[in-house]
Amino acid sequence: MNFQLSPALLELQARTRRFIAEQVIPYERDPRQTDHGPTDALRAELIARARDAGLLTVHASKALGGLHLSHIEKAVVFEEAGYSPLGPVAMNIHAPDEGNIHLMEAVATDAQKVRWLAPLVAGRTRSCFAMTEPAPGAGSDPSMLQTTAIRDGDHYRITGSKWLITGAEGAAFAIIMARLEDGRATMFLADMAQPAIVIERQMDSLDRCFAGGHCVVHFNDLRVPASDVLGEVGEGFRYAQVRLAPARLTHCMRWLGAARRAHDVALDYARRRQAFGKRLGDHEGVGFMLADNDMDLHLARMAIGYCAEVLDRADAGEEGGAARANFESSRTKVICSEKTWAVVDRSVQVLGGSGVTGETVVERIFRDIRPFRIYDGPSEVHRWSLAKKLLKA
Amino acid sequence: MNFQLSPALLELQARTRRFIAEQVIPYERDPRQTDHGPTDALRAELIARARDAGLLTVHASKALGGLHLSHIEKAVVFEEAGYSPLGPVAMNIHAPDEGNIHLMEAVATDAQKVRWLAPLVAGRTRSCFAMTEPAPGAGSDPSMLQTTAIRDGDHYRITGSKWLITGAEGAAFAIIMARLEDGRATMFLADMAQPAIVIERQMDSLDRCFAGGHCVVHFNDLRVPASDVLGEVGEGFRYAQVRLAPARLTHCMRWLGAARRAHDVALDYARRRQAFGKRLGDHEGVGFMLADNDMDLHLARMAIGYCAEVLDRADAGEEGGAARANFESSRTKVICSEKTWAVVDRSVQVLGGSGVTGETVVERIFRDIRPFRIYDGPSEVHRWSLAKKLLKA
Amino acid sequence: MNFQLSPALLELQARTRRFIAEQVIPYERDPRQTDHGPTDALRAELIARARDAGLLTVHASKALGGLHLSHIEKAVVFEEAGYSPLGPVAMNIHAPDEGNIHLMEAVATDAQKVRWLAPLVAGRTRSCFAMTEPAPGAGSDPSMLQTTAIRDGDHYRITGSKWLITGAEGAAFAIIMARLEDGRATMFLADMAQPAIVIERQMDSLDRCFAGGHCVVHFNDLRVPASDVLGEVGEGFRYAQVRLAPARLTHCMRWLGAARRAHDVALDYARRRQAFGKRLGDHEGVGFMLADNDMDLHLARMAIGYCAEVLDRADAGEEGGAARANFESSRTKVICSEKTWAVVDRSVQVLGGSGVTGETVVERIFRDIRPFRIYDGPSEVHRWSLAKKLLKA
Amino acid sequence: MNFQLSPALLELQARTRRFIAEQVIPYERDPRQTDHGPTDALRAELIARARDAGLLTVHASKALGGLHLSHIEKAVVFEEAGYSPLGPVAMNIHAPDEGNIHLMEAVATDAQKVRWLAPLVAGRTRSCFAMTEPAPGAGSDPSMLQTTAIRDGDHYRITGSKWLITGAEGAAFAIIMARLEDGRATMFLADMAQPAIVIERQMDSLDRCFAGGHCVVHFNDLRVPASDVLGEVGEGFRYAQVRLAPARLTHCMRWLGAARRAHDVALDYARRRQAFGKRLGDHEGVGFMLADNDMDLHLARMAIGYCAEVLDRADAGEEGGAARANFESSRTKVICSEKTWAVVDRSVQVLGGSGVTGETVVERIFRDIRPFRIYDGPSEVHRWSLAKKLLKA
Repeated sequence: MNFQLSPALLELQARTRRFIAEQVIPYERDPRQTDHGPTDALRAELIARARDAGLLTVHASKALGGLHLSHIEKAVVFEEAGYSPLGPVAMNIHAPDEGNIHLMEAVATDAQKVRWLAPLVAGRTRSCFAMTEPAPGAGSDPSMLQTTAIRDGDHYRITGSKWLITGAEGAAFAIIMARLEDGRATMFLADMAQPAIVIERQMDSLDRCFAGGHCVVHFNDLRVPASDVLGEVGEGFRYAQVRLAPARLTHCMRWLGAARRAHDVALDYARRRQAFGKRLGDHEGVGFMLADNDMDLHLARMAIGYCAEVLDRADAGEEGGAARANFESSRTKVICSEKTWAVVDRSVQVLGGSGVTGETVVERIFRDIRPFRIYDGPSEVHRWSLAKKLLKA
Repeated sequence: MNFQLSPALLELQARTRRFIAEQVIPYERDPRQTDHGPTDALRAELIARARDAGLLTVHASKALGGLHLSHIEKAVVFEEAGYSPLGPVAMNIHAPDEGNIHLMEAVATDAQKVRWLAPLVAGRTRSCFAMTEPAPGAGSDPSMLQTTAIRDGDHYRITGSKWLITGAEGAAFAIIMARLEDGRATMFLADMAQPAIVIERQMDSLDRCFAGGHCVVHFNDLRVPASDVLGEVGEGFRYAQVRLAPARLTHCMRWLGAARRAHDVALDYARRRQAFGKRLGDHEGVGFMLADNDMDLHLARMAIGYCAEVLDRADAGEEGGAARANFESSRTKVICSEKTWAVVDRSVQVLGGSGVTGETVVERIFRDIRPFRIYDGPSEVHRWSLAKKLLKA
Repeated sequence: MNFQLSPALLELQARTRRFIAEQVIPYERDPRQTDHGPTDALRAELIARARDAGLLTVHASKALGGLHLSHIEKAVVFEEAGYSPLGPVAMNIHAPDEGNIHLMEAVATDAQKVRWLAPLVAGRTRSCFAMTEPAPGAGSDPSMLQTTAIRDGDHYRITGSKWLITGAEGAAFAIIMARLEDGRATMFLADMAQPAIVIERQMDSLDRCFAGGHCVVHFNDLRVPASDVLGEVGEGFRYAQVRLAPARLTHCMRWLGAARRAHDVALDYARRRQAFGKRLGDHEGVGFMLADNDMDLHLARMAIGYCAEVLDRADAGEEGGAARANFESSRTKVICSEKTWAVVDRSVQVLGGSGVTGETVVERIFRDIRPFRIYDGPSEVHRWSLAKKLLKA
Repeated sequence: MNFQLSPALLELQARTRRFIAEQVIPYERDPRQTDHGPTDALRAELIARARDAGLLTVHASKALGGLHLSHIEKAVVFEEAGYSPLGPVAMNIHAPDEGNIHLMEAVATDAQKVRWLAPLVAGRTRSCFAMTEPAPGAGSDPSMLQTTAIRDGDHYRITGSKWLITGAEGAAFAIIMARLEDGRATMFLADMAQPAIVIERQMDSLDRCFAGGHCVVHFNDLRVPASDVLGEVGEGFRYAQVRLAPARLTHCMRWLGAARRAHDVALDYARRRQAFGKRLGDHEGVGFMLADNDMDLHLARMAIGYCAEVLDRADAGEEGGAARANFESSRTKVICSEKTWAVVDRSVQVLGGSGVTGETVVERIFRDIRPFRIYDGPSEVHRWSLAKKLLKA
């Protein structure tokens, strides 16, 4: 057991940190940011900078132009990226593209890769992942999937409504989860620019960091050729898991960076602001919040590192690795979503009036991070899943 | 000791509840709501409805057209008003006007009442309370007040910068807190429409329920006649306390209503939404959150009722009443701000994806209520103040 | 709504407070206290003092020599009694006798009252309530009751094992819950001094405040005449509820007193002890704990008062009163057991090394109070029960 | 960064686990256990078994007969030892001897080692560490030290009172912290069997796992030769830190084992016990507690591992290592003491009535572990210390 990073990884960490500080943070007050995320113009500008810095889509395979980072390496780099709300967008490692790239590298055909994956990795397009449905469809419980895919010759006809589809507005293509007539779930690839795909609206949402926002999308008898099935027919739920375990973990990594940022802003304020005759931070009530932040950040980082190793070993074919990865990513997701939330909430409290206004980036992080306790499985679903496994073991 | 409400109060409660449900909630999706609160046009329309319903500015004295409610009575009525984010605006009992009315009734001259208070109570104007300053000025620690008021013949010349001034944009007048040359704090009344008063900007803020938003305001050598001093010269800090104890409590009342609303929405959802083979609410993990909400709402309501009685008795001249009111309003503020927050956060969690979007009113309440743990004294300042009093007692 | 106590109740409160301070607390280091509670000799001495002070078995009816206190009145008096671990024993209002008296007054025959109730109220005997069973029998879930009562002519033959039977050692009689052949539960009265009743052992337990401790008891074909059925045949579960709602609440009252005691000891220490250059209590980290204690005690007291009124109204025949009493006593039990626990745990922490030793009474209260989060329904069972009712309402 | 243990360490872990399970746990109901810990006869018997198993005093240097474990290695082995309350006693790695051995190996003279350290390492004697004093002396704040050591020729004369001196009763010798005339603190070694050392009493205490209990000890003009100064004169506070950082961490390790035991007992019960129609653990309210336990144990283990590495690197002479070790052991102590406590408290709750009685070992662990949030620095002192360092950094 050791906690040291290799010199190469330390260098990559330092380089990413510098990139975020010098090239990304200056954009944080850029007006090209809407309630539904940065505009594609702003995104393109940021991506160009990451490309120049050699930090674009770092997790992708080398063949596709990435650095093929291990999970442990991603843990270090993505935390740095998350230090700015614009960092993951700039580096093209934001959700849902990051997870979509991961999944497509694993299961897409060569033709699909050329057509959809390559431009995505290059940062020239965006994608979306169309799984979640409004009640009574698939939310936390994916088995309630209602969107149907009916076989029709060498095509499928997809009909259904989705919501909370991150990045749909502006996406070049979608991965669509639908249920076959026999009940099995399957994933399909489809260009978004088709009349049978209607984006009803971008939903008002607490967070504002995802390019394209969160959309309500209807598939109205969408025809998809059988060759655009992603992976095997009927493997939809399994692929969702393949995608989800690492996707959950990269969320943890990025939000850890965001929480560290909030803490740093609060700490800096506590060093400078005076109240009741001393520095704010010298009041134990404030100092304790800073200490708790420090502990929570530390523990979230430890949990991420541990889980990353489990995922790396699973990728390397360790026996039982998939089950272990599943358990560990659940556990880590609960830990990180709750601890980073606590850190950000405390940081707001330390900042007082400044904390609940746009005076610092913390209010923005506060809004952006709250949904993480819900998406990719709410804490309650994960706790229940962990309990079942503990009881069985 | 008893917990029953009088028939008259029950009737007023029911009437308010009906008013909010039938006349106010339908406006919640009215487009005339901005990031800095409802527009004055929307406000005027709502106020007309409250006037028709006999529910406008109910806390004001009968002479001024109100119902002269006791604190206990306000506890009941304001909770109902807070059930909609637009309720307090409609009934003209929102901050800071509600507290300003309370203070001016207590200390303004007849001439000041005619000029400024009467139209405010009638809902024809809005006001603001200009006390808080950016660092290194007066925030949680009012003794750090930096805005100066220099005597100049029969005038004062006021210079300084304020921020987080709720409702400044669109306010007819301000109550300004400034420090005399001898260090004593004094309150002044001044029309806002003067060149010496500059609203630099409306601050981006987490909450969006306050008409006029939160502003940065500069007083640039503002001349105020001595006759526009509010109350006695040098009594500024004392009046701030006079205003603050009940103002804190009315915040508790309104936010209790808001938290109850969030809980009701979540409860309704938990009754209808299915997941993993049963109703959402039948999952203990969700049911426990609902039970905790119920307990927290109950306790907040108890604490408010108790504090209201302490304030009523203080108003009636009970010996030691002011000190008791001060302690009790601190204690109640911490309790209510933390418990209502917990309720709203849990309600978001129960709602899942819907909870972090504009699909329900809960996301809006979530944003609006977070700052309450900070303004009117952050929890940390109150805990410290409570501790000092406990140690002394 | 008002929170004032009548002059008569204030007088009774003051008298009880004085009695505890002057006559009971001096016994707290009396050696006649074992790991299984005070000895019967010590108990008799304390009871004699309460009798002289007119404070014995105050909740019993006047006919039986008590003061026939309402639930609201009990709330005030029992909190005072709980201020010393020996207070409830001295005043003969401890569990399980207090609840047994309540139940027997409601449903026992005159003959049963003369034989068993009168000496119990007079403090000359003790009793026990034999319901809980070891796995796989009735614990939190009373429907799992396994002890059987087989009708045999004009007798019943009772067989089964019970545990956690408080006060069994030394009790004159037991109320036994058993299941008839047709599955219905029934309560029986029986003298303990019979060969068919075997006390296997007094269990080691965290708490040490209950006279007689907690016992494992076996009923080996115990013959009970049909005339010793308590109340109606088949009404056992209903009576358990009749007994339980108020019994839960009196636990809340007594433990509130105990928690207030712990807080007072900690507060006193925080005023006197120096550390790191100032009074312990002047450290915010400690002061905040004291403030939290104060808030929790206040809220527990409010919840008890509210619930007491609900029970008083139910006793007065209010429509729906029983259901309301059931809900309210669940809610109050969770609130009080968790808040008093938090208070005592913080008091230990404030006291440091002294807190985890017998140097103060706080370590004793810490041990005694922990089980209250479990007995009379663990928090988890109550939360679940509350949730079900909220979902239904 | 990796989280794998070496094969040799895995083997040692497995061997320790087996030893505890097979040789130590069977003694847990041995009657030779008092309110002040296991008797010395029981201890001798356990130590003989550890010696046979090659697991005695494993942290000591090889020269002295130990395995000279690194901190990382201790993390693994001591957690296993802590799985039984008797494990650390059996393996001679309990407090305060474990820390005393560590300190004496670092600073004692050869003569002192022969006389006092060798028999201690061999498990033939016990020792105590006499630093803590009753108010107004040195508690959390060591600078308040009042015990004096007056130079008198080639001797010192030590006078003062100590309390909470773990293991004093039955100890062969003490390390005594006293203050010289010039104010500097110094440590002294002294045999306990001297008339000038009086053990007033063994204190009643919540925990019962430490051999010899916690004692009040008086030094009445005790003469100590200058050659029995431990280390350098005037270095007392520095040595206390040398001793404390690793001693805090070994506490974390052992208590992690204890908490894991409590969790295992609760988990096993939740698998077997039925309530309300299903397995206890299948109730989400219970399952969530088990999941939280699992997460807390995991995080505590991660924190310990990380801190152990920091200490190992500091021991290896890393620049700034001592300061880092100090910070890290504070942070880890807060994390572990609070998380293990939460685990044990939840385990009690899962067990219900069995949890608060001696039916399982959990009640015992509950009592034993609570003081860990206080000794070696209460959480509040550590949070404050962490905050100061964060503010400075």
